[in-house]
Amino acid sequence: MSSLSQTPLINALQSVAARSHAAFYTPGHKRGQGAAKSLANLIGKTALQADLPELPDLDNLFAPQGVIQTAQALAANTFGAEQTWFLVNGSTCGIEAAILATCQPGDRLILPRNAHQSAIAALILSGAIPIFVEPEYDAEWGIAHSITPASVTEALTQHSDARAILMVSPTYYGVCGDVEAIAAIAHTHNIPLIVDEAHGAHFAFHPELPSAALASGADLVIQSTHKMLSALTQAAMMHVQGVRIVPARVAKALQLVQSTSPSYLLLASLDAARQQMATQGQELLSQTIELADRARMQLSQIPGLAVLSLDRAGTPGCVAIDRTRLTVDVTGLGLTGFEADEILHQQMGVTAELPSLRQLTFIFSIGNTSADVDCLLQGFDTLSKRFAQPSQARLNSPELPLPIPPAPLSPRDAFFAASDTILMTEAIDRICAELVCPYPPGIPVLLPGEQITAEAIHYLQQVVAMGGIITGCADETLQTISVVRSA
Amino acid sequence: MSSLSQTPLINALQSVAARSHAAFYTPGHKRGQGAAKSLANLIGKTALQADLPELPDLDNLFAPQGVIQTAQALAANTFGAEQTWFLVNGSTCGIEAAILATCQPGDRLILPRNAHQSAIAALILSGAIPIFVEPEYDAEWGIAHSITPASVTEALTQHSDARAILMVSPTYYGVCGDVEAIAAIAHTHNIPLIVDEAHGAHFAFHPELPSAALASGADLVIQSTHKMLSALTQAAMMHVQGVRIVPARVAKALQLVQSTSPSYLLLASLDAARQQMATQGQELLSQTIELADRARMQLSQIPGLAVLSLDRAGTPGCVAIDRTRLTVDVTGLGLTGFEADEILHQQMGVTAELPSLRQLTFIFSIGNTSADVDCLLQGFDTLSKRFAQPSQARLNSPELPLPIPPAPLSPRDAFFAASDTILMTEAIDRICAELVCPYPPGIPVLLPGEQITAEAIHYLQQVVAMGGIITGCADETLQTISVVRSA
Repeated sequence: MSSLSQTPLINALQSVAARSHAAFYTPGHKRGQGAAKSLANLIGKTALQADLPELPDLDNLFAPQGVIQTAQALAANTFGAEQTWFLVNGSTCGIEAAILATCQPGDRLILPRNAHQSAIAALILSGAIPIFVEPEYDAEWGIAHSITPASVTEALTQHSDARAILMVSPTYYGVCGDVEAIAAIAHTHNIPLIVDEAHGAHFAFHPELPSAALASGADLVIQSTHKMLSALTQAAMMHVQGVRIVPARVAKALQLVQSTSPSYLLLASLDAARQQMATQGQELLSQTIELADRARMQLSQIPGLAVLSLDRAGTPGCVAIDRTRLTVDVTGLGLTGFEADEILHQQMGVTAELPSLRQLTFIFSIGNTSADVDCLLQGFDTLSKRFAQPSQARLNSPELPLPIPPAPLSPRDAFFAASDTILMTEAIDRICAELVCPYPPGIPVLLPGEQITAEAIHYLQQVVAMGGIITGCADETLQTISVVRSA
Repeated sequence: MSSLSQTPLINALQSVAARSHAAFYTPGHKRGQGAAKSLANLIGKTALQADLPELPDLDNLFAPQGVIQTAQALAANTFGAEQTWFLVNGSTCGIEAAILATCQPGDRLILPRNAHQSAIAALILSGAIPIFVEPEYDAEWGIAHSITPASVTEALTQHSDARAILMVSPTYYGVCGDVEAIAAIAHTHNIPLIVDEAHGAHFAFHPELPSAALASGADLVIQSTHKMLSALTQAAMMHVQGVRIVPARVAKALQLVQSTSPSYLLLASLDAARQQMATQGQELLSQTIELADRARMQLSQIPGLAVLSLDRAGTPGCVAIDRTRLTVDVTGLGLTGFEADEILHQQMGVTAELPSLRQLTFIFSIGNTSADVDCLLQGFDTLSKRFAQPSQARLNSPELPLPIPPAPLSPRDAFFAASDTILMTEAIDRICAELVCPYPPGIPVLLPGEQITAEAIHYLQQVVAMGGIITGCADETLQTISVVRSA
């Protein structure tokens, strides 16, 4: 067994990259020898030298027996899983493989209405039938939290044949649901709990962060290792534990949703990020938490700003909050989140992760420095001096929850059906052929296969009128919508 | 319109990477600030600085309106397509999206038996029903070529309801099928021809190379831009032309099979590789062709070696051969391809793309140098002096074609069915639950859903006894096999 401080995949790649040899294999740039100058200038020669294929010394992602197997075993050990898979197609492919491996076509899957769009893609690919659970809605902040154990129990009462439960924890806003209780409920029904922990890969490495999903009993966990840890964008991991998931099915499903020419730059970055956490995780995250805490405290004191408080932990759908995630309401500046974002980005050198109607969300990670925080505080301080209003009413999202519309077709059937693009004003009672998801609050109003109600159209029009944005659909102005063609 | 010599995506990424700002977005390494030392050592700081997410200045892969849109339009122009999509999950996701966009569940798709495994994955995801066409088998070399217009016509006669045709051209061995004639047949039936041109992204840029599939009338073409051009591994493109494909359906399908956090390193490398071909393609490829021609000529003269000759163009399933692809038979050395590969790799500093039982296949690209060729020739010369036999019978693969077994289940139904792993000796008449593909010749013997015949088992055992390798299945020794559980 290799030690947790080793990086077997990085080392193997480094060694092959350094080895002098004539390369008659892909990629065509041949260790950078034939790279375009513009690419070499952008990413440098060393990255190109390490962009190697599945050579014998470098193992094989889909049948690992060498350095990938060792690196994945070290990752399982580090994250507390029984087995770990490295992913080169993001958490997206992990969510998809999780559902393909647990649900057969027609099987029911319990999932939150505000699941990530990769879960909708998984419904389409698998043919699973969604049983949506409403996430708890925080009206004061206009954001959706997690689902509760009670709502999962209710869904299971109505659909005792459900084959799996998917939950998102933490949310984009760092809000964690009660994974432990929901895992216990799932296990009582002898079905697995899949957790989309895309934003929580750092949880296992610091006691002041929320519990990691694996530690709370989840069966299958997907993490975007690039989001909160230091892997390259698009690199992710999937972890499994317990007896309710068949690893061979997961492996088979992963072959469907990942390139047969996986990037070793992405794979090696997972090995490196894992080793970094195993050896320095707590120390690095202590610094991150300190930076985020400082930002949280000082931003709260700036006139016109409100910061989503850690005190909300304990409210419905929110058992804990990731203190490295900051959501700042700028209503008191008389600006929308989009406007504040534009000024911060263009004039103050501060770039947020997620601007929204009333808020901006900032991701703090081990890559942030004290200078970054100074810049953030300085930026908001200037904004406040320029814009703060004596008092300012918050913009309120239209009322929620909106009832989930009837679904005459499954997401899969709607995807494959012939479709037409028609005026939204003529779309009532037609079957929607696309995802329509307004931000805020990031809860889809319509999914492929669902009937378009007058209520849904009215709600969406209100969001647009307020300045919210619509995602997932082809016409984001919502003048038109894609519907299933009538027979 | 930007000029073909520009690199809009590279430029935008360079500009954002160079811009001083505080990053509160993903990835967690924050422009390298928090990268693991091992990763920074491996790939360098510049690559990390350019590993950025979908910031406003960098456009959005799934709803492109900025630099990605411009870069894709330049690519369409350069490759001769009406529209081009950049892919971050390899040709794999392109093949999958092509089939998801053209076939509904239960629709018939005509494809060669030796299609890439991504096509099998696409059958599973889409639920399309395969109508397999036997590729032409070159018994002298023991390899499978392309499918012929006659065999496609026959398949269409028997299945006039087929919704699309998929063909592979060139094959792994650089052998091109008659895309022009097959496109004409497809269009007579008013169905699209999809071409897996993973190994032919360079064809459009040199008159001495085979015709590119788009120039021959294909409707939808998938290219591994990383294989023969200079993009990073896992980066690919899909091109469309004509009226038989609905681009909106392709775009929708691509959203199902690609990460929502696409890597800009991969995307930018496509822009760079495209610009390199647009500005220097013919000149660079002239050099590559010269190197490959020299290697081909000199290797042919080394005792004990035979090189797959360009003269085979014009035989069934082979209208042209990519002269940059060299397949060398080493039977005359008394070695298997695997043994020769091991010696060349370990002792001579020459690494091939694909070792096989009798042969090694070498990929020449714009990244190869004259020194690489010297090394190759030197290596084989040494091998020949050490091993060449006065005369040596070629190993012959067991006889082909093997009849395609009956398929009681579709690939999709077999994928989702419960399965058991049993002894191969007890598997006759059971329904196979996995892909079983021997090399040589790379033609699957069994696919998910097909009935396991005594003939198939006998054939596979012969391949294993000869020293061939079996791919696609869990137990590559073939002592056991995964079968659909009996009712």
